[in-house]
Amino acid sequence: MKLIRINMAEKRVTTENAPDNYAIMGGRALTTEVIAREVDPTCHPLGHNNKLVIAPGLLSGTSAPSSGRLSIGFKSPLTGGIKESNAGGTAAQKLAKLGIKAIIIEQIPKEEGFSILRVTKDGVELVDGSTLRGKANYEICATLQKKYGEKVCVMSIGPAGEYKLSGATVAVSDSEGRPVRHCGRGGGGAVLGSKGIKAIVIDDTDAPKVAIHDQEKFKEAARDFGKILTSHPVSGQGLPLYGTAVLINILNEAGGLPTKNFRYGRFDFADKISGEMVHDVINERKGKVTHACHPGCVIRCSQVYHDKEGKYLTAGFEYETIWAFGANCMIDDIDAIARLDYLCDDIGIDTIEMGVTMGVAMEGGVIPFGDADGAIKLLEQVRQGTELGRIIGNGAGFTGKAFGVTRVPTVKNQGIPAYDPRSVKGIGVTYATTPMGADHTAGYSVTANILKVGSHIDPLKKEGQVELSRNLQIATAAVDSTGLCLFTAFALLDEPRALQRVVDMLNAQYNLQLTIDDVTALGKAVLKTERSFNFKAGLNEAEDRLPEFFQEELDPHGTVFDVSDAELDQLFNF
Amino acid sequence: MKLIRINMAEKRVTTENAPDNYAIMGGRALTTEVIAREVDPTCHPLGHNNKLVIAPGLLSGTSAPSSGRLSIGFKSPLTGGIKESNAGGTAAQKLAKLGIKAIIIEQIPKEEGFSILRVTKDGVELVDGSTLRGKANYEICATLQKKYGEKVCVMSIGPAGEYKLSGATVAVSDSEGRPVRHCGRGGGGAVLGSKGIKAIVIDDTDAPKVAIHDQEKFKEAARDFGKILTSHPVSGQGLPLYGTAVLINILNEAGGLPTKNFRYGRFDFADKISGEMVHDVINERKGKVTHACHPGCVIRCSQVYHDKEGKYLTAGFEYETIWAFGANCMIDDIDAIARLDYLCDDIGIDTIEMGVTMGVAMEGGVIPFGDADGAIKLLEQVRQGTELGRIIGNGAGFTGKAFGVTRVPTVKNQGIPAYDPRSVKGIGVTYATTPMGADHTAGYSVTANILKVGSHIDPLKKEGQVELSRNLQIATAAVDSTGLCLFTAFALLDEPRALQRVVDMLNAQYNLQLTIDDVTALGKAVLKTERSFNFKAGLNEAEDRLPEFFQEELDPHGTVFDVSDAELDQLFNF
Repeated sequence: MKLIRINMAEKRVTTENAPDNYAIMGGRALTTEVIAREVDPTCHPLGHNNKLVIAPGLLSGTSAPSSGRLSIGFKSPLTGGIKESNAGGTAAQKLAKLGIKAIIIEQIPKEEGFSILRVTKDGVELVDGSTLRGKANYEICATLQKKYGEKVCVMSIGPAGEYKLSGATVAVSDSEGRPVRHCGRGGGGAVLGSKGIKAIVIDDTDAPKVAIHDQEKFKEAARDFGKILTSHPVSGQGLPLYGTAVLINILNEAGGLPTKNFRYGRFDFADKISGEMVHDVINERKGKVTHACHPGCVIRCSQVYHDKEGKYLTAGFEYETIWAFGANCMIDDIDAIARLDYLCDDIGIDTIEMGVTMGVAMEGGVIPFGDADGAIKLLEQVRQGTELGRIIGNGAGFTGKAFGVTRVPTVKNQGIPAYDPRSVKGIGVTYATTPMGADHTAGYSVTANILKVGSHIDPLKKEGQVELSRNLQIATAAVDSTGLCLFTAFALLDEPRALQRVVDMLNAQYNLQLTIDDVTALGKAVLKTERSFNFKAGLNEAEDRLPEFFQEELDPHGTVFDVSDAELDQLFNF
Repeated sequence: MKLIRINMAEKRVTTENAPDNYAIMGGRALTTEVIAREVDPTCHPLGHNNKLVIAPGLLSGTSAPSSGRLSIGFKSPLTGGIKESNAGGTAAQKLAKLGIKAIIIEQIPKEEGFSILRVTKDGVELVDGSTLRGKANYEICATLQKKYGEKVCVMSIGPAGEYKLSGATVAVSDSEGRPVRHCGRGGGGAVLGSKGIKAIVIDDTDAPKVAIHDQEKFKEAARDFGKILTSHPVSGQGLPLYGTAVLINILNEAGGLPTKNFRYGRFDFADKISGEMVHDVINERKGKVTHACHPGCVIRCSQVYHDKEGKYLTAGFEYETIWAFGANCMIDDIDAIARLDYLCDDIGIDTIEMGVTMGVAMEGGVIPFGDADGAIKLLEQVRQGTELGRIIGNGAGFTGKAFGVTRVPTVKNQGIPAYDPRSVKGIGVTYATTPMGADHTAGYSVTANILKVGSHIDPLKKEGQVELSRNLQIATAAVDSTGLCLFTAFALLDEPRALQRVVDMLNAQYNLQLTIDDVTALGKAVLKTERSFNFKAGLNEAEDRLPEFFQEELDPHGTVFDVSDAELDQLFNF
């Protein structure tokens, strides 16, 4: 397996064999390791000393079900700490098939301008990208697929990445070539923009298959793992049928759907933006209720959403996006929310960060709560790079400072997602402590708190939440290294033989003798490396805190976030 | 001596006797102690848990020469750490005469709107300030002096403080009632704005004199201390004659005058903005070449600058301001720079932060380098609170993020002042390590590095700089607690008996038996308290660093900032 280094100051591509100690690292484990080894934690995130690492997971490109996740790693311009940002789409599988363990993008160009990175079986080359300057993701995808073939994967940045805004994403095209999967969080698009790379075209034509040491054992484990996934009620039924938006009604019922910039736990119009509603609208307009973001996904939680005229509007329309622009901004028009999702994908900016930011902008009186048209116009300002657009595009913390707002739901300057930490306390612990900044995926305690997956821990009480979050954060760091989708976790938590099947696949593919303990150890090592980087970057325990307004009681349960600082500081005792 | 507490949620004023352990604390020692004791380091700087403390120095209000400095303390919205911001003007003397050791402003109003705090010998009251809403400092001063008497001191915030911008100052009127002295750095104006206080009127009519235990001893020490100050070449000759701008030519000669956003160490047109030039222009236009910012100052480094028509334009026209808008922005028109100084005073925003910010905005292409009119227009945007104005008004770090600029001269997000750390390495150590963020006054190593005051340490070599900065930071923390102007330090460093005279005054005033060692111990304690607060606020050693671009060689000496991280981390070993 190869490491490809792109030096953007010299416009030079070099290929090296991955060192032996990277053998059992993929995805997040690998991006974290490279960043921690090679990047000065105190560097400017948009300067020549930062790097951006792109790595498929260990199982990516194989027949392992739902294993097509991609990791990108970098020092984040949003949080100031290390970041792994994770997406579906087809990049990971194609990179793995091309024998690429990681692409490491270094330095910044000596002159302004944008390049395209073209990756094929013959190698990697930098191509002039000046004609794409200022273009948004849908147009970039169409242009590059026309030029390089319909089946290439396109990773790209929109205007937000060109402006180096902290909310900018790296888009990854899906099986239909649409820029709807994103490494969304933490400003990876700004880092790629700072490197002068507008797009990466990955063409795996005539690439060999991923080498599997023991095909039979691998197939057997993969088949059984697929069976486990499809027979679990969440990954086998809820997600394929309703998408992730199935959570709107569930969280609303639990009093944990943050509403009006985290003022309430329930949204009066939740039924107008629920997964069930989205499902019906999609069916009525002949979209796709269920859809895989990459080939071989058996969960298929994505969907294709059509507008009132029955024309394609957006895809990959997630719970967190619907919450962010919906309940959080008091917008109850699902078509407007779908339009906002489309705009974010096109401009290349994180839907969660933008929804949280809109809530803060509404709090500051920039536009009123509930103003869908106003929110659309604000996103268009981001596209245009106006001063207001640059404020919004730099996220919730930045927007709060610009407009003197103190009710700013962020941790480590990253917007808090779709689960109120006062009524889902396990996720509050994750928000506070994960090295990623407020990130639900880093330790998705909603499982045990709300879905009763794995175990059940009362979401309204603080007891057991630190341990829950710790275990999930460790497991997630390992899962994020395999290329498996986080949604395999429901089955991994509920079905004892599932994790062994993952280990079986890894052993069969790489001719290893890993045990379940080794996987846990990998997760622990990743987390410790990330936390150590953050300390050296200037983020100490005092950053592992929620904003003070979570001491206000939240309706309907009247709860506050009462996990103490000392308890939070126990999380990394492992 | 009294502590006055103002609870802005309840609109309640309470008076308490200062506790015994505050007896030998004034100025910075006291503001730091109150903030450290009473403010949660992780609180939102603009939220209800932050406080703003106003304290005159220990000697303020007495006949001690140059002892009228005021300290305000708060958690800074700019740096995220503790802040003491220090100004001249007449507030400190009047507060001391009114027997007020500190005013502590707490909580935030339940409803929008502004109050005026009125302080007289009869007590402290909150008065409706709604008619001042949106007003700038010159108008506020005139209005309140008309209403409450010409001789009152007015502390106030301009539009920048109302918008809660991180660069906002608290203006303090001078002997002529002009809002030209500012607690400038760190956003104190934003904190006062968040508390809903637009102005503080201090009226010492019929106030008793400050109690002095042993008048004779005090007078003798004060007289001798005055003599020492006036016979020192810097405080007795250079500063009164040319003002602080005397440093333009000196720093230019030394290759330490940061030019074009810290690209060069010399400015080709330094002679057009030098102290000597300012002196001649003032004389020609019948301004005042020398002027005291508060009664009893024997140094009188301030001046009154007239425009081409011979009308008042600005006062307190400092070296750092002239550098910031001048060499740093490549503006060589001294009248334009004076106008920028006036605008900053009026709008209530820090001149250093704004000059550094303009340099960053120029770097980002918002306006060209050298564009004086453009800079004036940007400040008018701050006044109006436009989106661009809010970006600029939040300072250099914020503006850099908005426009994707990486060459951002800040430490702890505060703009680096007028001495390049590559050719004045002692000041670089201070910028990096002081708990205040980049602040030349916190440990003014320019003394030994450039002026050969106290000792001489080669400014181009790293040897001895950490020790120099450490000793100066300790001494400064003590001086900032006495109410003495920092410019007394030249004499304190060069004349062995000077410090004993300060101790003599303190002992005579308060009936104490302090030694010189006690004063040093006070300075050390203040620094340690500040650093401890910062750690708890999330600022660890990794924040004690200069931006990476100071590794680029600086003309004319070809030097880089080469004091290592490990050496910087030695600073607090005392």
